[in-house]
Formats: sequence, C-alpha cells, structure tokens
Amino acid sequence: MSYFRKHLELIAGYQPGEQPQDGQYIKLNTNENPYPPSPLVVETLMENLTKHRLSYYPSPLCDELREQASAVYGYPSDWILVGNGSDELLSIVFRAFLGKGDWVLYPYPTYTLYRVLALLQEANFGEIPFEKDYSIPKKVLTGQAQLKIVCNPNSPTGTFLSTMIIENLIKNSSCPVIVDEAYVDFAYDNALPLLKRFPNLIILRTLSKSFSLAGIRVGFLIAQPEMIQGLLKVKDSYNVNWFSQKAAMAALRDLHYMRNNVEKIKQTRKEFSQAMSKLGYEVLPSEANFVMVRKPGENLESEYLYLKKNHILVRYFTEWPDSMRISIGTDSNMQLIIQILKNMTKDNKNDL
Amino acid sequence: MSYFRKHLELIAGYQPGEQPQDGQYIKLNTNENPYPPSPLVVETLMENLTKHRLSYYPSPLCDELREQASAVYGYPSDWILVGNGSDELLSIVFRAFLGKGDWVLYPYPTYTLYRVLALLQEANFGEIPFEKDYSIPKKVLTGQAQLKIVCNPNSPTGTFLSTMIIENLIKNSSCPVIVDEAYVDFAYDNALPLLKRFPNLIILRTLSKSFSLAGIRVGFLIAQPEMIQGLLKVKDSYNVNWFSQKAAMAALRDLHYMRNNVEKIKQTRKEFSQAMSKLGYEVLPSEANFVMVRKPGENLESEYLYLKKNHILVRYFTEWPDSMRISIGTDSNMQLIIQILKNMTKDNKNDL
Repeated sequence: MSYFRKHLELIAGYQPGEQPQDGQYIKLNTNENPYPPSPLVVETLMENLTKHRLSYYPSPLCDELREQASAVYGYPSDWILVGNGSDELLSIVFRAFLGKGDWVLYPYPTYTLYRVLALLQEANFGEIPFEKDYSIPKKVLTGQAQLKIVCNPNSPTGTFLSTMIIENLIKNSSCPVIVDEAYVDFAYDNALPLLKRFPNLIILRTLSKSFSLAGIRVGFLIAQPEMIQGLLKVKDSYNVNWFSQKAAMAALRDLHYMRNNVEKIKQTRKEFSQAMSKLGYEVLPSEANFVMVRKPGENLESEYLYLKKNHILVRYFTEWPDSMRISIGTDSNMQLIIQILKNMTKDNKNDL
Repeated sequence: MSYFRKHLELIAGYQPGEQPQDGQYIKLNTNENPYPPSPLVVETLMENLTKHRLSYYPSPLCDELREQASAVYGYPSDWILVGNGSDELLSIVFRAFLGKGDWVLYPYPTYTLYRVLALLQEANFGEIPFEKDYSIPKKVLTGQAQLKIVCNPNSPTGTFLSTMIIENLIKNSSCPVIVDEAYVDFAYDNALPLLKRFPNLIILRTLSKSFSLAGIRVGFLIAQPEMIQGLLKVKDSYNVNWFSQKAAMAALRDLHYMRNNVEKIKQTRKEFSQAMSKLGYEVLPSEANFVMVRKPGENLESEYLYLKKNHILVRYFTEWPDSMRISIGTDSNMQLIIQILKNMTKDNKNDL
C-alpha cells in the first residue's frame, strides 16, 4: 500500500546531472563556471564567521541582500524575491499558478525540471517544439494557458530569443510569463527593461552561472510588487541561510570581476564552437555558457562515454541522443576536449 | 485581475517571529540557542572556504552529511532526507500526501505553519484542542485523515507526549504520521526507536535548536527507505547549499558540546519556571528550550511590549493572548526578564 498521492506514483523526480564530489573530473556537464567567485566572497565570509550569528535565524526576506540586488538590477527591493537557487523560485511559481488540469506552455527542448514541476501540480504541460531555426513556436506565443515559460538563453540549446519576441509573447499572454534568465549574463540582451510595463512578467536570475556560485544556492525573482506579495505566501519563511546571504552580497558588490569572467567565457565559447564545427559537429549558436553540439540522426553516447573515460564530464540526455551539451570551461579544458574527440576518431579508425 | 490560484487569494502566508538583524535585542522569541555552535563549525568552514568549491553544485542528496547523520541517529543513510531547515521538509511532506479536500489532523495549539501548509494544498485541517492536561486529543488518535502531525515537544506549549502515546497514535493511524521533534533534544525521550517497526512514521529533526545552528537551515527527515524514495520526487535537486552541508557535518561530530549546552538550558529552564511561578504565572511543564507562561483570561500584550521596550523580545501570539512563549536564554537573560516583570508591576502600582 502506498501513502503517496496517486499522481506521484506515476512520475519520476527530476534527475540532476552527475555531481561527483571527488574532484576526479573536469566538470562540463552542469554549466558551472570554471573560474572561482570574486575573492570578496571568501574575504567577507572569513570576516563574519566568528561573529556568532549562526545560532540565529537569517533575515526571512534577505533584507540587506535585496537592497544590494536592487542596486544591481535597477528595481526597488520590493520587486525582488530571493530564493534557495532559482529552482526553488520555479517551484514557488508553479505552486502559485498551476493546479490540477491547468496548462503550462513552453518551447521544447528545454530545462526538463519544468515538466517535473508541472507533474507535481497535476497540471498539463504543452511542450511545443521550437521552430526549425529555434525561433519561438506559434503555439507558445498565442496559446491559452495558466502559465508560460521561456528559458532565455535556452538550455540545452543555448539559443536566444530577442527582447522584441519576448515582448510579443507577454503582450499575447493573459497569464503570467516566466523568462528564466539563468544564463542571460552571457547574452547580448535581456528582458529586465520590460518589467516596468508588464505586471504578468516574471524574470528569474541566478548567481550559479555568471557569478560562479552554484554552491551557495541563490536565485532572484524580479517582478512587480503585487506579484512578489502573492508569491511570498508560498515561500518557506527562512529559505536562504545566513552564509548564502552574506556570500551573495559580496558577489554582487564585485560586478567588474563577474563581467571579466563572462568575457573570457564568451571568447572561449567562440573558439570552441569554431573548432567543433571543424570536427564535423553542428554547433548551435550559443548565447549561454555552454554549447549544444549535434550530429543529427547519430547517437553521441559513445562520445559522452569516451570523454568520461578521459575524466571529462559533459551532458548527454537520452531524450536528445544526437546531441551533447558542453559547458564552457577554461581554454585548456576545451582544447583537451577537441584533442580527445580527435583521438577517439583515430582510435575508431584503428579499430576498423 | 489576479493571476494567482483562487485559494491563495484567501489565505495569508505564515508570519515568522520578528528577526531584527541589528543586535539591539535579547532574542527570546524564536527559540534560538543562546550559546554559539561548536567551535568545530567555524574551524571547518575556515579550512574549507579557500578550496574553490563554491562554483560547483553541492551534493544533491548531501551524501557525506547523510553518512554523518546516520552515525548520530542510528539508521542507515537511505533512511535520511536532508532539508533546507525542517520547514522545507514539512512542505515536502504536505505536498506529497495532501491534495484538495484531503484532511490533516493535529493537536492545537501548535506550530501555526501546519495550517498554512494545509491551506496551500487546498486541504482541510482539523485543529483538535489538546485535552485539559495537554494529553493527546482522542480525535487525533483515532480520526481518519491523509496525514497526522504531532509536534513533540509541542510548540508553543512545551508539553510532551510519551513515546507510548506516540506508538498508540501510529498504530491507530492508517496514514503517515509526522512526529516533529525539533525540540526533542531538550526532552527525556524520543520516538526514533519506533521507526524500525512503522513504515508510516516520519520523524523530523533540526540543527536549529539544540545544535545552535538556526542560521544554516539544516533539518533531517528520518523514515523507512520507501518513504524517503517517494518524498525525494518532491524535493528540489540542490536544496542544501555547500556551506550548510559542511557546517552540519562539523556540528554532528561534536555531540558532547551540544549535550553540554542542552544540560545548561535545562537547568536554566527549571530555575526560570520556578521564578515565573512565584511571580504569579501559570507555567506549563516544558520539555523544550522555551516555556509557555500564562495568566488565564488576561491579555499579556502589555507584558510583551514592556519587555520589548526593555530590549527583550519574547513571543506573543494574538491567537493566544493570555500567554507568552519565552525561549530559554542564558541565566542572566532570564534573571533580567524576572527583574523587568517585577519592575513593571511596581511601575503600574506607581501609576495608580
């Protein structure tokens, strides 16, 4: 006999990418940043650790951190909700807008967590394939739903929808629209300026990617204050611990450091994309800190396994077997991948 | 026009206790520990901070921390789920077992978050008043529901149900039963030994109280492995950040330090309870790190405000206006409360 709600029996939870903790791999599978966070982060923590604050609950709304984020994102602090990573913020939004039988629409392929969160709410999900050129599918643009999401830049494709398209989507939608901008610091534009005009727009940001802080679990949801007030009802009271609040504040004070890393990664992305093209892969144009490489119709599992054998982890999804998603690491990380894939071709040839 | 699900419009979120971050108050309102955490916690963090781990996602299931918790709680690590505070674990359990129209039963008064979590699920909550002597209400013991909870020791009363009663409750229930043991390290017994025999038992523990680590947000859910497997589907992938995993491991390695603080607090609790009785308060027998003091039929708001004016925060709930819940601080904290309440009586007399 099961105690669980019936719909839970039928679903599998989200499967996160492999997270070996032993340092044996070059991790290019979950879009982490190859550079450490700003030195201010560690300095700030070192200074504060001995001040006997750990016994006390942290600020429930992250008051000081919201002020700091306000200065960075250009909206007042009551437009900002801080989450235990943007995954928690996604979960809050799904719980706030979707009940049994409701619909969420999003372009596909995308972050597979959206599907899991819809299933947890007993909601229907419309996974509408991107157009051939990775532009927005018409059904997402004009369809009826209780919630729409675009991940922009999109994972796993890395492709980007222009702000004009996003504006069009919002205008065409009577429901809330989430623009998940986890990777947007690596892109040429973003949707923040639209917030003023659209009460149904919700933007998600994270410190996990451009700020090199996946380990601290801090994300931001930015929307008009009425939206924030409603979402707060669903949030756990003390959802962001004291350390992470302090670390996030330090990181946001050092934007120059973050931007410098982002520029390095964009340069590496460009060189890696060219090299992979030369190797015969289709490389999707990326505005993120990863690229999706494809061999349409082939199965790239052996490439994934060969790289893993050589201590490099990339992301292989059984749902899209002719593709790999490769996070952008350092220049030498990426040169190593190219070298290993070249060797693999030689090895195979020798096998024949 | 509102975008939110209808039932959300009608509910208020949980109101956490005041959390002033300015150090102007002696905080005895949210049952924090007056003693700092084990020095091992800060030492461990200092050692690890420079090791460049913050860029990477933490272990999704807190593998090492589960091992450490396994050694402390005496069950294998696949019996343990680590949460971002036990609040997150409560939210996971409510989402896993309660849908629209389902019932949760619990004795009342208790942690008011249970009500909010039920409302978020569109579930019904049966708040059954404790018997006069704070024993378990019959309706909780034998009623039909999809979920039952006892907070034991209970907040805000501090009262405790014996393990025999808990066993009775579980045997009488065909649904999952949560025993929320946030405060149990301050009590004379606990329900852990029952787990082996009952697949419907779920025990919650936290590092926020006895381990002096409210700031890091770490809680444990302990249950049979089938239960854990089902609950994992609802959990966010990376719900506990890297710092908190490290800090929690260090704290669990220093049980002697925790137990020593617990003994001090129990001694202070005894002396404070006697002193408050002498002052004319009804003091409920407490097995927790706080006591509830009452003047049945009177309104204690002026006492609460007078203490606050004197820089001491205690918890006053408008739902139970003839009571205050006072966390046990240091001996001198508690002597100060007694002194202030004595002065207040004098001040009032002078006013007359």
